[in-house]
Amino acid sequence: MKTQEIADFLSADLAGDPNIEIVGLAALDTAVTGEIAFSESQSFFETKASAVLVSLEFNESVTCTVIKAASPKLAFTLIAPLIHIKKIEPSWHANADIADGADVRASFIGPFVTIGTDTIVGDSSEIHSGVRIGRNVIVGERTVIHPNSVVYDGTRIGSDCIIHAGTVIGSDGFGYVKDENGSHHQFPQIGSVVIEDNVEIGANCSIDRGSLGTTRIGEGTKIDNLVHIAHNVHIGKRVIIAGQSGIAGSSVIEDDVVIAGQVGISDHVTIRSGAVIGAKSAVFPNKIVRSGVWAGIPVQPLEEYARQNAGLKGLQKLKDDIKDIKKLQK
Amino acid sequence: MKTQEIADFLSADLAGDPNIEIVGLAALDTAVTGEIAFSESQSFFETKASAVLVSLEFNESVTCTVIKAASPKLAFTLIAPLIHIKKIEPSWHANADIADGADVRASFIGPFVTIGTDTIVGDSSEIHSGVRIGRNVIVGERTVIHPNSVVYDGTRIGSDCIIHAGTVIGSDGFGYVKDENGSHHQFPQIGSVVIEDNVEIGANCSIDRGSLGTTRIGEGTKIDNLVHIAHNVHIGKRVIIAGQSGIAGSSVIEDDVVIAGQVGISDHVTIRSGAVIGAKSAVFPNKIVRSGVWAGIPVQPLEEYARQNAGLKGLQKLKDDIKDIKKLQK
Amino acid sequence: MKTQEIADFLSADLAGDPNIEIVGLAALDTAVTGEIAFSESQSFFETKASAVLVSLEFNESVTCTVIKAASPKLAFTLIAPLIHIKKIEPSWHANADIADGADVRASFIGPFVTIGTDTIVGDSSEIHSGVRIGRNVIVGERTVIHPNSVVYDGTRIGSDCIIHAGTVIGSDGFGYVKDENGSHHQFPQIGSVVIEDNVEIGANCSIDRGSLGTTRIGEGTKIDNLVHIAHNVHIGKRVIIAGQSGIAGSSVIEDDVVIAGQVGISDHVTIRSGAVIGAKSAVFPNKIVRSGVWAGIPVQPLEEYARQNAGLKGLQKLKDDIKDIKKLQK
Repeated sequence: MKTQEIADFLSADLAGDPNIEIVGLAALDTAVTGEIAFSESQSFFETKASAVLVSLEFNESVTCTVIKAASPKLAFTLIAPLIHIKKIEPSWHANADIADGADVRASFIGPFVTIGTDTIVGDSSEIHSGVRIGRNVIVGERTVIHPNSVVYDGTRIGSDCIIHAGTVIGSDGFGYVKDENGSHHQFPQIGSVVIEDNVEIGANCSIDRGSLGTTRIGEGTKIDNLVHIAHNVHIGKRVIIAGQSGIAGSSVIEDDVVIAGQVGISDHVTIRSGAVIGAKSAVFPNKIVRSGVWAGIPVQPLEEYARQNAGLKGLQKLKDDIKDIKKLQK
Repeated sequence: MKTQEIADFLSADLAGDPNIEIVGLAALDTAVTGEIAFSESQSFFETKASAVLVSLEFNESVTCTVIKAASPKLAFTLIAPLIHIKKIEPSWHANADIADGADVRASFIGPFVTIGTDTIVGDSSEIHSGVRIGRNVIVGERTVIHPNSVVYDGTRIGSDCIIHAGTVIGSDGFGYVKDENGSHHQFPQIGSVVIEDNVEIGANCSIDRGSLGTTRIGEGTKIDNLVHIAHNVHIGKRVIIAGQSGIAGSSVIEDDVVIAGQVGISDHVTIRSGAVIGAKSAVFPNKIVRSGVWAGIPVQPLEEYARQNAGLKGLQKLKDDIKDIKKLQK
Repeated sequence: MKTQEIADFLSADLAGDPNIEIVGLAALDTAVTGEIAFSESQSFFETKASAVLVSLEFNESVTCTVIKAASPKLAFTLIAPLIHIKKIEPSWHANADIADGADVRASFIGPFVTIGTDTIVGDSSEIHSGVRIGRNVIVGERTVIHPNSVVYDGTRIGSDCIIHAGTVIGSDGFGYVKDENGSHHQFPQIGSVVIEDNVEIGANCSIDRGSLGTTRIGEGTKIDNLVHIAHNVHIGKRVIIAGQSGIAGSSVIEDDVVIAGQVGISDHVTIRSGAVIGAKSAVFPNKIVRSGVWAGIPVQPLEEYARQNAGLKGLQKLKDDIKDIKKLQK
């Protein structure tokens, strides 16, 4: 891709050489000839990159070609798939077990893949080595499922999704009913999982099926590694969930929520649209968390959390004060 | 299954039509004709279910057939396996690698399964696609191991167990001895794992073998997703462990303990029978936790935890009080 | 191996029978004839072990052969690989998918393994059943990769490493850029992972590739189960990371750091060499944590953490004191 083609794709102004062939993406300080980088500051920089995406206000005289964008980082992100192509060559491996009753139109089927009967896999999808897809599953178009992931019977996955390696979708929810002897009997876990379009899920996650209803992950939501989503959880659109967080049964996460790493959301919680839940915090059962930034175990508004933490550091002084006061009273 | 057959199975009274064919289970509000639901309240309800399990005291006049049970939810759970049959058709896939020295009597072997030599798999067990079972393993009868789980050499798994996808059983424990140069040498991790009957383990869990002894999970214990059980841990019978909790080396969890989600139990801890450990809490090394409800980092009795949290909220008032007192003293 | 050979290997003194054949390792109290155990105390013990490693100061008269070592536990650890041999018989399974362009010199290739083109696997390595190794990967010598682990394209793994089952190395980092409509676009995740020699990684971990640069794990570092290492994290040499801990993007963990279980390290953190981070604690973004022992959310020096926790327990007394003071003032 030539520098001018990149500028045209972004509808952006270019200063410098419009004919450089760009073959790679890199950071400003490690880039080499033929690569494009980005800079979000207005300051001068030195780089070996052939081209750099800069902000509209950038006004320094640098040695490389520059392309101006309102958000250089966003522009860099948007052109990345055009330069670094992740899609692999179409091929179907002979040693895959695809049931006769399955309708598979994927562009790539790796070795040792299993696909069950009555399952549909859409055009241009990639099902990588060792993936297990059960019966009666639907996978949309251009969805990539990385090696050794497991999709249980009856799951629905949309188009343009990415599922990283080792992730399990559709396992039984964790619900038991105790009998008079204290033994636990599994409450029926016979619902399903629906994952909408453009969802990305990291490695080694687990997403349980609904018990009687559905576990749902909304369009454009992005989930990091080792995240646990329990039965009947409903996650809205464009939600961000960072690594090792977990959401317990029947909780609702509305659109555009951000959940940082190692957060615990208990069961039957509602997180309202626009809320940001800080790292390592916890929301206890049945709570409704409104928009705003939250932190702590259990969560409180960030300012209260900060004030409380500051107060804790002053505890020793409080004790000393009280000692002094008592002395004076005597 | 007909409504009367369900009533008979539960030794329960039926009011309405004894001859309706029940083909599915559902929630009261989403059920359709042919399905059975349950209601735990004594209030009137409207439903499209053909039959509903209700409490013994239920006295409302509803349009559907009702079956009375002491615990409608337990009754619903107990009849579920009769209506929604999870067992799959017996079949052995040709493309599985089963060692000559293995004694496998499973009813289902999926594609691309690996079973090592000197391993025994009992009658009516299901070993799903891509499962790896090492050498010298014993798996009991009617146990289901879901796709891509891994069972290391020497592991013992009982009958009527369910192991969900991606779970690893028998990996090395995490124990190292430092030499004079600060390098870590793995302490021998050559023990085994014993999982008793009727244990259920969620997706993507890890259960380490004992270093010199055994890691043990007792009969009827249920473990959620992404749970970590370290080497030489002993877990009793009917224990419940929710998602993303972890138990460090050599700890003992006695019978009937409940551990909520994202709990951390350090090494050499004993959790006494009947204790309930609240979500996101932690038990530090060598502690003994007696029966009762516990919460916090580190755990304290729930009432103390609640009082302390309330106290924290009052910290600012304490400070203000002290300021006032000082003024008066002047 | 005979007792005298063990003593010779350790350059240690032996008292008793130098010709006993040792065939196993065990704990002092469960050992049987033919096994060796160790005791770190100077007290007398009874055992059925044939030989016991004891401290240099040990002076009791016991019935078994004793071998004296400065650290009996370290000596026991060092002789373990000679007695309990973990390496398995060389064999290459016929049903593995190894690309023509791969250069594989492993001693063991299990069934249903996938290895991509331009990948090199060194001498005496073991690639177990169902492992997926992508294209352009390098795996060193004597490295063992356990079943169903996944190594993405472009990863470098050193020699003498052990990767336990279900672990994923090289998945995309979790980085998104929001556009004006609130949609998330994946920032390029096209860097790589470098794992140096003698690294051990537990089961079901996830280690992301760098976004533009590299995720690096230093020589001799040991990582427990279900650990999450994000993109561009740099981990030094001989670091210990216990179960279920997570390290967010671009953080630096220097040599000889110890991170206990369920710890959360946020992004852009530096943990200085020699620091010990206590279980269940958290380090917030951009912090620098110096050498010493740390605990809490967020972390503070252990003494401060302990003092604060003690202070919390005294909160009720503070309140009572203030009430008393006020009464007296009236």
